[in-house]
Amino acid sequence: MTKISKGKLFGIGVGPGDSELLTIKAAKILNEIQVICSPRSAQNKESIALSIVNPIIEKRKDLKELTILEPVFPMTEDSLTLEKHWDMASKSIAKFLNGGLNVAFITLGDPSIYSTFSYVQKRLENSYSIEIIPGISSFSACAASIKKPLVEKDDVLIVIPKIKENLNILMENGDTIALMKTSRNKKELENKINHQRREKEIFSVENCTMENEKIIHGFSEDKPYLSTTIIKFKK
Amino acid sequence: MTKISKGKLFGIGVGPGDSELLTIKAAKILNEIQVICSPRSAQNKESIALSIVNPIIEKRKDLKELTILEPVFPMTEDSLTLEKHWDMASKSIAKFLNGGLNVAFITLGDPSIYSTFSYVQKRLENSYSIEIIPGISSFSACAASIKKPLVEKDDVLIVIPKIKENLNILMENGDTIALMKTSRNKKELENKINHQRREKEIFSVENCTMENEKIIHGFSEDKPYLSTTIIKFKK
Repeated sequence: MTKISKGKLFGIGVGPGDSELLTIKAAKILNEIQVICSPRSAQNKESIALSIVNPIIEKRKDLKELTILEPVFPMTEDSLTLEKHWDMASKSIAKFLNGGLNVAFITLGDPSIYSTFSYVQKRLENSYSIEIIPGISSFSACAASIKKPLVEKDDVLIVIPKIKENLNILMENGDTIALMKTSRNKKELENKINHQRREKEIFSVENCTMENEKIIHGFSEDKPYLSTTIIKFKK
Repeated sequence: MTKISKGKLFGIGVGPGDSELLTIKAAKILNEIQVICSPRSAQNKESIALSIVNPIIEKRKDLKELTILEPVFPMTEDSLTLEKHWDMASKSIAKFLNGGLNVAFITLGDPSIYSTFSYVQKRLENSYSIEIIPGISSFSACAASIKKPLVEKDDVLIVIPKIKENLNILMENGDTIALMKTSRNKKELENKINHQRREKEIFSVENCTMENEKIIHGFSEDKPYLSTTIIKFKK
């Protein structure tokens, strides 16, 4: 009996939105991989990461043989619900890996920065070989769009996903703050930042590097899921 | 008399070291650009950014027509010396732009994060059209190499280029710290971090994603220019 060797799991960052901001390495893997796993937030919502890689994979001659898994990772903070979904997704991925197939888990931005990949990684890293391909993070892409450096010389960059109790301390001790996913607790956050006494410039970018990209001097007025705010404190 | 329209300046991030970590967009531009500007730290040192893009540009059929500028940006903190060199480099670039040629200024990592591109950008942005192509930052690449997420959930990421007076406050208020270019004031920095009472894991990556990549659990022993340290505080 021949023993099938296990497949390899790739965690691939697909960048902020523009398909050309995938790395050459990511594109090569996606052109050869047998299974792509791309989580979405609800059954009826399309996966943004999948739409980013689409222009690359749709040219594959063997497209019909490519399996696409789209597990639902709901937008909730309830950890039990989340863990259940991460468990389920990890089990589906493991089935393919056990069958000797390689799987690419694709994730918006970079797999190491606020990515759901890390939850799947933790569940599978002891049993399978894993390789991570870094991606362009949203704050790098936003800085490129607004054409302002994030940090220079001895500046300190602080990346924050939501309001923290120590936001004031962080604002006093950083030179640039990148606020990810600014849709949550937006008003409270804006008030706290506006009340910070240091002089500052604020830019928000919605749907960065996508066709509907919008640059705002100040905070974003809508609540798009894909919004990043850059706060640059003056010296 | 026909008026020559001015060329465009591209600020291109070439990523941490592996040529395949260039974005598709960066590779496309580098395959068509007329002038590449790649600073180096001394006349007799090769430019690392240039060695990263070499496997891409060496396949160009029109390689002989490509101009490569390698201005010296010395490794000094003396601002007068630095400004003189940035002025000189900006003037050389401007000559090509005035002649209607496009110029790609290539930079290690991402052009918005501690990059010399920002100094050239400031000198030229009022007179020329500029486009910035983001690149993979060293801390994203290091996290991928050590296979540990940088930040999850509500974690705060702090990126620091050298010892700051407020290092202790930053260590108390962040979940992960990425220390860039850890070669400067290394011992003092290590002492300060080791004395911080929070439980932590420390990883350093030298020459990340390059052939001679080295992962160290703890601080880096040598002083390579390309070294990044990731400190993950436990909760």
